[in-house]
Amino acid sequence: MTVLAPEQTSRPKPRPFLAAAKQFTDGTSTPRDFLEACLVEFANREKEVGAFVRFDIEGARAAADTSTARWKAGKPASAIDGMPMGIKDIIETVDMPTEMGSPLFAGWRSEKDAACVSALRQAGAVILGKTVTTEFAATEPRGTRNPYNLEHTPGGSSSGSAAAVGCGMVSGALGTQVIGSVIRPASYCGTYGFKPSVNALNREGCHDYQSQSCTGIIAATLEDTWQVAHEIVSRVGGDAGTPGLIGSDTCPAPAKPKRLVFLETAGWPNAEPAAKKLMQDALNTLKSAGIAIATRHDDAKIAAVESNIVDAHPLSNKINSFEGRWFLRGARDRDAEKLSKIMQTRLAEAETITLADHRAALIERARIRALYAELAGTCDGCITLAATGGAPKGLQSTGNAQFAVPSSLLGVPALTLPLFDIDGMPLGLQVLGFFNEDAKAFAISGWLCDQLMSL
Amino acid sequence: MTVLAPEQTSRPKPRPFLAAAKQFTDGTSTPRDFLEACLVEFANREKEVGAFVRFDIEGARAAADTSTARWKAGKPASAIDGMPMGIKDIIETVDMPTEMGSPLFAGWRSEKDAACVSALRQAGAVILGKTVTTEFAATEPRGTRNPYNLEHTPGGSSSGSAAAVGCGMVSGALGTQVIGSVIRPASYCGTYGFKPSVNALNREGCHDYQSQSCTGIIAATLEDTWQVAHEIVSRVGGDAGTPGLIGSDTCPAPAKPKRLVFLETAGWPNAEPAAKKLMQDALNTLKSAGIAIATRHDDAKIAAVESNIVDAHPLSNKINSFEGRWFLRGARDRDAEKLSKIMQTRLAEAETITLADHRAALIERARIRALYAELAGTCDGCITLAATGGAPKGLQSTGNAQFAVPSSLLGVPALTLPLFDIDGMPLGLQVLGFFNEDAKAFAISGWLCDQLMSL
Repeated sequence: MTVLAPEQTSRPKPRPFLAAAKQFTDGTSTPRDFLEACLVEFANREKEVGAFVRFDIEGARAAADTSTARWKAGKPASAIDGMPMGIKDIIETVDMPTEMGSPLFAGWRSEKDAACVSALRQAGAVILGKTVTTEFAATEPRGTRNPYNLEHTPGGSSSGSAAAVGCGMVSGALGTQVIGSVIRPASYCGTYGFKPSVNALNREGCHDYQSQSCTGIIAATLEDTWQVAHEIVSRVGGDAGTPGLIGSDTCPAPAKPKRLVFLETAGWPNAEPAAKKLMQDALNTLKSAGIAIATRHDDAKIAAVESNIVDAHPLSNKINSFEGRWFLRGARDRDAEKLSKIMQTRLAEAETITLADHRAALIERARIRALYAELAGTCDGCITLAATGGAPKGLQSTGNAQFAVPSSLLGVPALTLPLFDIDGMPLGLQVLGFFNEDAKAFAISGWLCDQLMSL
Repeated sequence: MTVLAPEQTSRPKPRPFLAAAKQFTDGTSTPRDFLEACLVEFANREKEVGAFVRFDIEGARAAADTSTARWKAGKPASAIDGMPMGIKDIIETVDMPTEMGSPLFAGWRSEKDAACVSALRQAGAVILGKTVTTEFAATEPRGTRNPYNLEHTPGGSSSGSAAAVGCGMVSGALGTQVIGSVIRPASYCGTYGFKPSVNALNREGCHDYQSQSCTGIIAATLEDTWQVAHEIVSRVGGDAGTPGLIGSDTCPAPAKPKRLVFLETAGWPNAEPAAKKLMQDALNTLKSAGIAIATRHDDAKIAAVESNIVDAHPLSNKINSFEGRWFLRGARDRDAEKLSKIMQTRLAEAETITLADHRAALIERARIRALYAELAGTCDGCITLAATGGAPKGLQSTGNAQFAVPSSLLGVPALTLPLFDIDGMPLGLQVLGFFNEDAKAFAISGWLCDQLMSL
């Protein structure tokens, strides 16, 4: 079933960085060597995948060379010094435009780096370019294809970030998520994806304006994912006024959970049979390993959470619509022709929401968050699918976000782990943690990967 | 002592809008007439005062004409339809550059309106131009003079907003405050100034990046001040995820307080004798009117607050420095020559702060906020001076912020009321309220104005 691009001789493969960087220390490889391997993949695949809005190969080479010099001097700026990365084009960069997937911002320059980009540069990351985002990080796609099958969507809104990491054109990338924009594309493109606790990574300079928006990380390994997040938070913190991502300097060690909750979410009834079977097999494997698996059918608290998060998508949309409508109004007033039809419809719906409605929605969200928080005392985390199946065929839709949206509404950390495959298309197992306990979600994820990777 | 500009024939006077707008209904005046009166003052004073970075007189006239048409049709967009306003140049406007008081952003365009500006336009406000801000809304002044005496500072960082409102070139203006940037210049320029509860007015598109930053209102009357804030929040809410400014559609009615706390803050020991006398006289008047005045000397809880807010400035600086340093780093890296010496020093200090230090500072701030919140059960609000005296002579410093900074640290609403005068220079009485009880602070302020205006 899988349609490989003409140049493609093998299954796409993400490109782990930290493991490779060990060779920078003993001099058997360099950041420049590592970048060149990425650039080979870029040369082979970018034309067809379309992951980047803009790129700067010579700039990246220069950055890789200075990184190489730092490693040779025994003074890397951080563990991710030299890591080739892509930046979702909703996030500001001083050296490239930030176009937000909209013709209204064609060529627009922020004249500054977003906080997270500033941190990555300080940490020595090599920024190859800006990755494709759907229009204003919402739903209108901008042509990126799934590197695992060019006829399929890469997901969205962090389409280019997931596609670029998925086939190893870069090792990591920044995305953003307010509904399912990190977890879904990462699942579709066979990468790790991390949506942190809300506010845990500084969002200044990221052009999404909603209270449940998060800057997230897409990378080739769990260790790389954590490290990128850590290097950001240690330099620029979380959103102003918050403690930021809490955890160790390197990826938390794998830890076996005692009890996990299997969440169905609104996605389960719509999941493909093959996806459901993979999930059931995984649950059985975990049970065999001695982990208690609790569900809505045997725990009233879980049932309460399930019956409330089933509407996570419409409630999120309501909150997001009010919080972002001033921006959409401005876009429409500049040139309505340059705003997609779906955005115009969304704006019209948003205009009907009053401040009182919005306050009520925030209270409702807080109520549901409190319900979910009660689970923390009873289990180590929650697991479910990251998507209803592999990336669907077609580029018009970025896919179903029902599995991804609960963590956005809840403001809790979520990870997608590239453990499943359906007919050659990747699918993630999703881990949901508890607010500001992102490190624990990583520890569980590490153990799950070790246990399930061979499935 | 007062040096009047050659064109100036009388003491500067702010220009109330809502009172004048009553004449729009019966047709005896129009928004265009009102604007033209502002423009006379602008023509007379702007050259010397230097309140504006940029202005668009014909654009304002066109906006006033469409406002006039709405009033004539009996369909004003809001109570402030036609209100001439200035926008601090740290806040984005789609039709004018946002230069942030820095040569690094000369001519820079956001290509969008900030949320608050979007709301004001929707409400029909007539935006005359962008008002002078100190460099990045911090301390380096940019030449604005005090309309009450051109040799004196207008205060900062909302220098141009306060100066423009102070002499009636516009009726109202937006400012921002993270230390004392609304309360201090409003006090110095004889206007009302309102720094809301933290997060109560949507800050998206305002280029300050700190957790205690607020968008504030400077206007000619208490009623105008509330109305502008209300028209913003009803259209774009507070910061995403927060309830936004809570209160009625029009300015809360004056309400006599039963018990007020007089706060000394770190400012009292440095206040001018004349300022202290004015404050003491006011306290005596209030006592005569039957209001209980409590101080640190007769209440342990007040004493605890005082001994903690005495360091409000250094603690605020510590928090702000960490939260804003990524931005200053970027500015320095673009062109250090274009960053003021004081900003370079500030950045160097900020670089020494670790994430752990920052988290500790946030916990310390939360502790002090909780101490202050305990006062809510014991009094109706707090009062103190808005500044140590009238605007000091000289344009190199924007003055002492010791009285203004506590409300910033505490995240509580603060108002400055233009009730005092020392040798022709205005000085405000400051009212501090409690978090999200901005409406009550206005009600008390209304009563205080009625009682003390004749002093």
